[in-house]
Amino acid sequence: MTNIISVFDTTLRDGTQGEGISLSADDKLKIAQKLDMLGVHYIEGGNPGSNSKDIEFFQRVKALKLNAKLTAFGSTRRKFSQADQDSSLLRIVESGVPAATLVGKSWDFHVHTALQTTLEENLAMIYDSFAFLKRNQVEAIFDAEHFFDGYKHNPEYALSVLRKAQDAGADWVVLCDTNGGTLPTEIHDIVTRVRAELTTPLGIHTHNDCELAVANTLAAVQAGARQIQGTINGYGERCGNANLCSIIPNLQIKMDYRCVSDQQLESLTTTARYISEIANVNMPVGQPYVGNAAFAHKGGIHVSAIMKDSKTYEHIQPNLVGNKQRILVSELAGQSNIISKAQELGLDVNANNEKTKQIMERIKELEHQGYQFEGADASLELLLRDAFGEMKELFKLESLKMLVEKNNGSMNAEAIVKVNVAGQTVYTAAEGNGPVNALDNALRKALVQFYPSINNIHLADYKVRVIDEKDATAAKVRVLIESTDFKNTWNTVGVSSNVIEASWEALVDSIRYAMMNMDKVDSSEDQPRVRLGLVNH
Amino acid sequence: MTNIISVFDTTLRDGTQGEGISLSADDKLKIAQKLDMLGVHYIEGGNPGSNSKDIEFFQRVKALKLNAKLTAFGSTRRKFSQADQDSSLLRIVESGVPAATLVGKSWDFHVHTALQTTLEENLAMIYDSFAFLKRNQVEAIFDAEHFFDGYKHNPEYALSVLRKAQDAGADWVVLCDTNGGTLPTEIHDIVTRVRAELTTPLGIHTHNDCELAVANTLAAVQAGARQIQGTINGYGERCGNANLCSIIPNLQIKMDYRCVSDQQLESLTTTARYISEIANVNMPVGQPYVGNAAFAHKGGIHVSAIMKDSKTYEHIQPNLVGNKQRILVSELAGQSNIISKAQELGLDVNANNEKTKQIMERIKELEHQGYQFEGADASLELLLRDAFGEMKELFKLESLKMLVEKNNGSMNAEAIVKVNVAGQTVYTAAEGNGPVNALDNALRKALVQFYPSINNIHLADYKVRVIDEKDATAAKVRVLIESTDFKNTWNTVGVSSNVIEASWEALVDSIRYAMMNMDKVDSSEDQPRVRLGLVNH
Repeated sequence: MTNIISVFDTTLRDGTQGEGISLSADDKLKIAQKLDMLGVHYIEGGNPGSNSKDIEFFQRVKALKLNAKLTAFGSTRRKFSQADQDSSLLRIVESGVPAATLVGKSWDFHVHTALQTTLEENLAMIYDSFAFLKRNQVEAIFDAEHFFDGYKHNPEYALSVLRKAQDAGADWVVLCDTNGGTLPTEIHDIVTRVRAELTTPLGIHTHNDCELAVANTLAAVQAGARQIQGTINGYGERCGNANLCSIIPNLQIKMDYRCVSDQQLESLTTTARYISEIANVNMPVGQPYVGNAAFAHKGGIHVSAIMKDSKTYEHIQPNLVGNKQRILVSELAGQSNIISKAQELGLDVNANNEKTKQIMERIKELEHQGYQFEGADASLELLLRDAFGEMKELFKLESLKMLVEKNNGSMNAEAIVKVNVAGQTVYTAAEGNGPVNALDNALRKALVQFYPSINNIHLADYKVRVIDEKDATAAKVRVLIESTDFKNTWNTVGVSSNVIEASWEALVDSIRYAMMNMDKVDSSEDQPRVRLGLVNH
Repeated sequence: MTNIISVFDTTLRDGTQGEGISLSADDKLKIAQKLDMLGVHYIEGGNPGSNSKDIEFFQRVKALKLNAKLTAFGSTRRKFSQADQDSSLLRIVESGVPAATLVGKSWDFHVHTALQTTLEENLAMIYDSFAFLKRNQVEAIFDAEHFFDGYKHNPEYALSVLRKAQDAGADWVVLCDTNGGTLPTEIHDIVTRVRAELTTPLGIHTHNDCELAVANTLAAVQAGARQIQGTINGYGERCGNANLCSIIPNLQIKMDYRCVSDQQLESLTTTARYISEIANVNMPVGQPYVGNAAFAHKGGIHVSAIMKDSKTYEHIQPNLVGNKQRILVSELAGQSNIISKAQELGLDVNANNEKTKQIMERIKELEHQGYQFEGADASLELLLRDAFGEMKELFKLESLKMLVEKNNGSMNAEAIVKVNVAGQTVYTAAEGNGPVNALDNALRKALVQFYPSINNIHLADYKVRVIDEKDATAAKVRVLIESTDFKNTWNTVGVSSNVIEASWEALVDSIRYAMMNMDKVDSSEDQPRVRLGLVNH
């Protein structure tokens, strides 16, 4: 048997069933691009036609020219109807996707209770639906819902369901542990039996209700499954889906299977962190492989052993998945990515240089305070350029005052800003829909006479996160701002116990970063063409 | 073989190695009592004599008269010395504990690299240390560090280490997957081999670096291990230890082993949540078995099936572990979710009722504006109760003013609030670290004279997200606030183009929700005992 594993990502479909996860069409497009770079083979985008967000996604994703196969999700046809008149199946074909997943019942109890039809009609629904997809040249994946529960209650019926899909030409039969209640030994035994009964390649789709989704996926692969379905960071309904961020390295580093290239595997950590930022879900610090503490060592015996040989307390080399070792009590944490970032900017850094050591100290100190430069490239670049004396001070805040007021009705916000720009003190006031908007308006008003292009900058995203909820009386927030001039996009960060101050910091960085590039932009013909709105919070 | 499993909890020792976990002696005593009520057999309290906190704990815990065996942790004697002169071993015996765990090396590589001694001396260290414990009538547990890595590199030496502990009289031999890198199939094979070689009862101690700690523990039990070592919520270094909150129900509900009584198992969810509060670590919403979303249903089809028979999408009955079913409301769901939520609250709804239709319209309209109730149970409950006329208006905002100021240095925030409470107009002003904190302080100041319990409410999380970033000139933010009084947790939502207004809405809902339940709380003896800090943004 081949050792090549087909990776099917359903972050954009099953992942969005997770509590608190809600993705816009823009979010979905960004995530699809990242997944494609990671090298997954199938990206399940959603249910075309189920809502306007998914329709927009399926239309716009074509322009991205992904390597991965975009996959639509749907169900087998309705009971007692025609597949070629089923609006949901028709919409899948019309969406032009190369592959589609249809879910169907394989547990007799569900056929009776949820579907409320006969066992025979369920078989016909499956056969007709897959025959329809294959007539329309769509790669067809059968998600056999509740297969393991179904098999345990009525193995013959569960197997006959799979055979129907196979007979109709399904390209994959995926066995789903929908309720997440099955144990690895059961998975192994049942997949082994199915292998003996079917010729169609098998896939596995597990849920984490027993904290066994990863183990169950591995057990199925060991028994012969060759497609793994899961989500980044294990997002999904209830306790989540199988976590691809753990499954892929387990299979590839420890079990001699091939999922993605070794180079793609090195992007696993940034992919996981990027998607957690887009989804606005805190990543558990101890998440296996990709978490911030996955290779962190506290003081004492472990650290001294690690320094002799990191194999003493690390099960793999962290760089294989793009993560890094962190020694919580020492200064030796690998910051090679910062050095390479600085080199990318043409700054004279190397690990032995005194200035580089100072910068490392400064970054460590800021990270300790709660800054996170992973999602804030522009702030990191400013920090590095400042340290190397490459930035002129373009403006300086002298004072700031803000008033927010509510009198039966909507809230008003006003900001008063005193800024020194190029030796001149400018005093401005502005209103806004919210305090950050008011601040932004006042600051721009002060700067626009000197830098007219500033009005081309547009806020693309604004996120706030509590970073030390443990200590509520001194809790800090981290604000991440994404800005764009419609050619480039940049991200900045601010941290404070005051959300206004943190927003102000990120805002100032965003504008400084834009101004740094403005000299060039202003003198070329290639000016941004669009006059855009301002930030509004 | 017996099906009785000995549960060894190391939350107070290995669990405190987790990043961000720090427990006082008081915290440890509270946790020990909860663990005892859950029915664990061993509570590893720490290393007596390693620090003053642990010394205090070992002294004070005696007064609690626990059923569980209190266990001290230490290492085998130092190289080339006498066990009965080893200060660490002497302190264990002096602490008067009935049982002790000593960690020793079983991987030849570690003996050479970390311990820097000979293989023979390591064997002597183990023999002498266990013989010493047994001479002093202490139940002796051997934690064979890195056993699986050691076995894979040098099986004969790894086994000879275990035999030494057995020969010296150790009561348990516990096989540790210290680096968390071993797979379930390997664990099963190796434990099976060890079973054949030893007569001493075996235990298993795993770490979660491959997201396999639970599966590895189950595999070891299936191969004959009868002691399981782990922590509540899987706390521990790097990716954490094996999570007892998943292992115990897996073994007991699904695999016919006995860990605790069925009644004790029903306290699992409150135990997990209580300890997460004491440790001040947010519990992942989707944590298996005990998480807030472990039995939460979002998809419309799922919910309509669940209402026919909950077995359709639940792998166990939630009450077996003291958890409960929750129906989430979201754009993906039909109205059946809302109806069952309302029924859960005892409100008179059904799909044909005119009031129900109005509420559905209202919720649809709010979702269109950007509200999201799936993460805001409490706001939804208030909305439903308001619609059914079940809520009295507890207070009413008349006006609000806020001032934020920065003058070379930190930012200050002040809020002035005019509220009508029970017919009285109350005018208060307060400062805060940030504007939301200032608002919160001012509002509480106005309400606390009427509702003293308000000070028991504590902000657990605060999230902000832009919901329509495409349209920046009218961008809105959604604020989600999670609050707790240490017994219950509730979530509220606010939406506005002004982050302060959105925060204010979520804050008011949080306090209204708390006040709704306060009438009951205030008149009972069961009041929250802890006075907590306030929100700070």
